[in-house]
Amino acid sequence: MSIEQSNSGVEPQQAQMGGQETIPTAVAVELAQIRKEIAELRAQVLEDRAALIVFSGDLDRSLAAFVIATGAAAAGLKTTIFFTFWGLSIIKKKNRASVSKRDLMQKMFAMMTPSSSKALGVSKMNYFGIGAAMLRAMMKKQQVSSLEELIALARELGVQMIGCTMSMDIMGIDKDELFDGIELGGVAAFVEEASRARVFLLI
Amino acid sequence: MSIEQSNSGVEPQQAQMGGQETIPTAVAVELAQIRKEIAELRAQVLEDRAALIVFSGDLDRSLAAFVIATGAAAAGLKTTIFFTFWGLSIIKKKNRASVSKRDLMQKMFAMMTPSSSKALGVSKMNYFGIGAAMLRAMMKKQQVSSLEELIALARELGVQMIGCTMSMDIMGIDKDELFDGIELGGVAAFVEEASRARVFLLI
Amino acid sequence: MSIEQSNSGVEPQQAQMGGQETIPTAVAVELAQIRKEIAELRAQVLEDRAALIVFSGDLDRSLAAFVIATGAAAAGLKTTIFFTFWGLSIIKKKNRASVSKRDLMQKMFAMMTPSSSKALGVSKMNYFGIGAAMLRAMMKKQQVSSLEELIALARELGVQMIGCTMSMDIMGIDKDELFDGIELGGVAAFVEEASRARVFLLI
Repeated sequence: MSIEQSNSGVEPQQAQMGGQETIPTAVAVELAQIRKEIAELRAQVLEDRAALIVFSGDLDRSLAAFVIATGAAAAGLKTTIFFTFWGLSIIKKKNRASVSKRDLMQKMFAMMTPSSSKALGVSKMNYFGIGAAMLRAMMKKQQVSSLEELIALARELGVQMIGCTMSMDIMGIDKDELFDGIELGGVAAFVEEASRARVFLLI
Repeated sequence: MSIEQSNSGVEPQQAQMGGQETIPTAVAVELAQIRKEIAELRAQVLEDRAALIVFSGDLDRSLAAFVIATGAAAAGLKTTIFFTFWGLSIIKKKNRASVSKRDLMQKMFAMMTPSSSKALGVSKMNYFGIGAAMLRAMMKKQQVSSLEELIALARELGVQMIGCTMSMDIMGIDKDELFDGIELGGVAAFVEEASRARVFLLI
Repeated sequence: MSIEQSNSGVEPQQAQMGGQETIPTAVAVELAQIRKEIAELRAQVLEDRAALIVFSGDLDRSLAAFVIATGAAAAGLKTTIFFTFWGLSIIKKKNRASVSKRDLMQKMFAMMTPSSSKALGVSKMNYFGIGAAMLRAMMKKQQVSSLEELIALARELGVQMIGCTMSMDIMGIDKDELFDGIELGGVAAFVEEASRARVFLLI
């Protein structure tokens, strides 16, 4: 804000004495400099936003991502999730027929990757022997929200969801295979945006 | 910039008149506005804190978490670690009998997950064929602190440790199975706190 | 602090003389206080830098790391990558003979870990059955930059790369096994630096 602006609307309530200016020039110079420095600081201060890159497509890590995202949104941060690579499986529609324009490798890839959030595995599945079904059953018994319920909650809270176009190209995934309302975008643009967010996590 | 500097080159052109104090109203209005803007900025600036969510229960990732946490604490950041999911294994007491109120799935889960930090595996164990024992031996030979030594160092440095209540409910883990001095808390509250920290990492 | 407070204790020593204005002492005191507060804020504001800890040595995660790093650098952030643990494999020179001073465990470790970026596996290889060769072929078909091209781009963009000395000691990796121009450093120093960066991610 310039000095002129900040004075506008302020009634001159001071007794002018001998035609004097109410803000001495030397003070005005100082104030202008201070305002410039404050504007510079303001441009540097991070915004009330949370940005998550979800790279993993494991059920357990997806749960962590959505618990964090809904927590951030509930705390008043404008929250965005960028789904890339294996993470795209989380936002795939169920029972969506694979598109015909896929090449052979993309078809193989689609067969080998989860068809939707319902089909996600657990990151430690082979190692600890615990399966996604067991984890889901344990969560249900404790009345903890399922991944699908957390995704729905995230949407209610206005969490923005973006699919990574580069990953979609590589894997041959079409926009209409993803949930309705998913936006598409590139990593570089997301990173630039995310670098201004208070929270920036990769999962 | 000091006052002396900022005034340098400005001729003293003022003097005293009747002992009257002199912040002109227009200047006071400016100063009040500037103070308000500074207060707003201050509320936006992140705090000298580090927040880590430890989701992984792998030995190698746990080591990374504690090396980062002790580094952050040594650098003067108030540091907090939130242990969730597999990460809870890191802060389990050794040889702690499993509690009786666990249901069948929770008992199975407890049998399949590491009983303490001593029992953690390595994330690449199966893939590269390297085991936790080999990593521990290599670290010892190079006189690198063990995980248990790093945990002790973290406690000495005042690193706060919190166990995730939701994960504990799901897995049927009791507070008295965890190290003494571990606090309990929810993800949402931790994320809100962490969003004000200069460092916020998920491991 | 209110204006009234900041004036308390300051003797009114200035007034107006002959219509000439400069900076009244009371105003100067206010301005000095404001400048001090701005300087404090400036010290707290994060810098236009991005810091990445690359812990993983998987091809897919390495790709994510370099896509993010080059994106951050292109967005004008001074970007640094710290390679630790499995991540060191990414910056190993190809066909570099193993050094003779390795002990038996370090030799075994070197045989079991990737010899260069060309030899990296995919994090989900065993689980989804997709191999690194398949991923590379799919990327090439879509004309997406390979990992090696992204590494070259990162260097062109001035991304700083640091090898973790502690990991190198444990694994018995020499500086001359790594790419030329890689700096060496410790985790603690990196974390302290990174805590002042706008972006700080662990991959």
